[in-house]
Amino acid sequence: MSIQESEYPVEAFSAVKWNAGMLTLLDQRKLPKEINYLDYDSSRDVADAITDMVVRGAPAIGIVAAYAIVLAARSAYQDAPDNWQEVIEQDLQYLSEARPTAVNLHWAINEMRQTLVSITSNPEKELLDTALRIHNDDIAANHEMGRLGASLMQANSQVITHCNAGALATGGYGTALGVIRTAYKNGLIENVYASETRPWLQGARLTSWELQQDHIPVNLIIDSAVSALMQAGKINWLIVGSDRIAANGDVANKIGTYSHAVSAKYHDVKVMVVAPASTVDMQIETGKMIPIEHRDPLEVTDIHKTRIAPVDVSVVNPAFDITPAKLVDVIVTEKGIVHEPDTEKMLALFG
Amino acid sequence: MSIQESEYPVEAFSAVKWNAGMLTLLDQRKLPKEINYLDYDSSRDVADAITDMVVRGAPAIGIVAAYAIVLAARSAYQDAPDNWQEVIEQDLQYLSEARPTAVNLHWAINEMRQTLVSITSNPEKELLDTALRIHNDDIAANHEMGRLGASLMQANSQVITHCNAGALATGGYGTALGVIRTAYKNGLIENVYASETRPWLQGARLTSWELQQDHIPVNLIIDSAVSALMQAGKINWLIVGSDRIAANGDVANKIGTYSHAVSAKYHDVKVMVVAPASTVDMQIETGKMIPIEHRDPLEVTDIHKTRIAPVDVSVVNPAFDITPAKLVDVIVTEKGIVHEPDTEKMLALFG
Repeated sequence: MSIQESEYPVEAFSAVKWNAGMLTLLDQRKLPKEINYLDYDSSRDVADAITDMVVRGAPAIGIVAAYAIVLAARSAYQDAPDNWQEVIEQDLQYLSEARPTAVNLHWAINEMRQTLVSITSNPEKELLDTALRIHNDDIAANHEMGRLGASLMQANSQVITHCNAGALATGGYGTALGVIRTAYKNGLIENVYASETRPWLQGARLTSWELQQDHIPVNLIIDSAVSALMQAGKINWLIVGSDRIAANGDVANKIGTYSHAVSAKYHDVKVMVVAPASTVDMQIETGKMIPIEHRDPLEVTDIHKTRIAPVDVSVVNPAFDITPAKLVDVIVTEKGIVHEPDTEKMLALFG
Repeated sequence: MSIQESEYPVEAFSAVKWNAGMLTLLDQRKLPKEINYLDYDSSRDVADAITDMVVRGAPAIGIVAAYAIVLAARSAYQDAPDNWQEVIEQDLQYLSEARPTAVNLHWAINEMRQTLVSITSNPEKELLDTALRIHNDDIAANHEMGRLGASLMQANSQVITHCNAGALATGGYGTALGVIRTAYKNGLIENVYASETRPWLQGARLTSWELQQDHIPVNLIIDSAVSALMQAGKINWLIVGSDRIAANGDVANKIGTYSHAVSAKYHDVKVMVVAPASTVDMQIETGKMIPIEHRDPLEVTDIHKTRIAPVDVSVVNPAFDITPAKLVDVIVTEKGIVHEPDTEKMLALFG
């Protein structure tokens, strides 16, 4: 369960590593075709890597931001040993704007800032200790969520998951895929359906690869076939991660989650949202206030540099959507489970 | 409104042409990148072109099958002028198996057979007359459906359409896109959203291209963003075509239609299905009995020959789904409109 352990099987795999004073990221844009690692020694480059989705997944983004701050502090301290805490602010600002929807980015920056403000000498070691703690805590949290989420499931479960909330999206093990991993080990899962998750194809490229590596039975389907599968009575659970959960239990997650949740409601399929407590944003009352990132139309009009749509076509490309709490049966965090979430129940656990 | 007229604008465009004794098809696999026509003089090759989706769309498949029978009859009469009506049966059988879901294929074969059985001399001219009639009737039907469907719409309508039920999918003008064309001409449409329609991307490649050519405002979105758009209150109508309509009003259409219809129900968005009477199959009681074609996993795992999924991943790839009549507000055919379809109302119009 520590990041120092072996990287195989994928369940203990980390797409994020601190290695010889550098941050190493598995380039998730190239998966599953290429296993390609990129090294970073500048916090600006890491911020750009987050924006460009070299790394993605709300918990992983938080961890990466923590390591980026180690790099930023090293550089600031080298350039300005006397006022590095001022100098670093520009890098923190740039980092905080890398992606708008996942709150874990801001959460990690705040965690690191708490260490940062009390340091008087060379900050690298202390900040690295905090970053490693954030990373290891996330892995431990994933295992706890796996245990809690699996405890809700029955034998012979058929599960749909959307996007990738796996080892690749976290410090390791995964949130939604952590529950699926634990439930599979406990003999509760018969089949997993991974919806491909246009436009970025995290389901096709990442989730089906992760589950395949761990020999968990997985079927790839297009996003719009989810409703027909539910109609056929084949699905017990929709299990997804989250990028931000509002104080009332509304859930921001990858575009398409809401569509799946509406179908789940219509077909009496249960909806489980799995996310670390760092994803819960009690400062935001409802999902309506969560900023939704709109990304480059090229993500929709081109696939691997092949143009699929006419030139100059207008595109609407929201990267996330909001699933209202009333469509969510259960939110699973390492702090506990919230059934049929509302503001009161959320406050009881996260207030 | 006749196929002899100019092909431009696209509203009067036909992807299917009879030209100098050959059948010419616009290769829809290459759109919108390439406008490439293929010539056919063998009915077997035409059947393969239907299977391989050189041409697609239920009404277009019916028309193409009619022309293919002209080619089959020519060949059979050349080889066996005395018993060509027996010889042709193998070709008719092969043609009827080109794709399983669209009933228009069988409808067109039956229409052609009615001409065929009464012919005593060289059959080509008489069969061609029937094929041309089927083609022209389809175009006229599309215009009538356009008029009827548009009559149901209010000003400033925002519309979602799925797949391509346009000029490219019919003899010309289109079913769902025929309604959208007429409604736009009548000043009723503010915006059209085309869902991209994985895996074959008919929405991205064909519908957005068709509407763009006719200067109708179109926005391309991924399939799973449809629910979020409806949630935002932006949509008045979901307008789609159909591949087969059962006697109780259940609708088979491109995979994803059911998902959109479930979302439409949840968000009080009206659902209009537009299809010629030849799409109605009164021999089939409910949608559950409509055969659903499952297509090659490569359609999901590869896009334009680029692999996007891991090797050997299991794929479920249904090409169609069934939207039950209770989710359909109105079925529009050239024979009239069925509101809130059920068996009784369907019988009244199509019995």
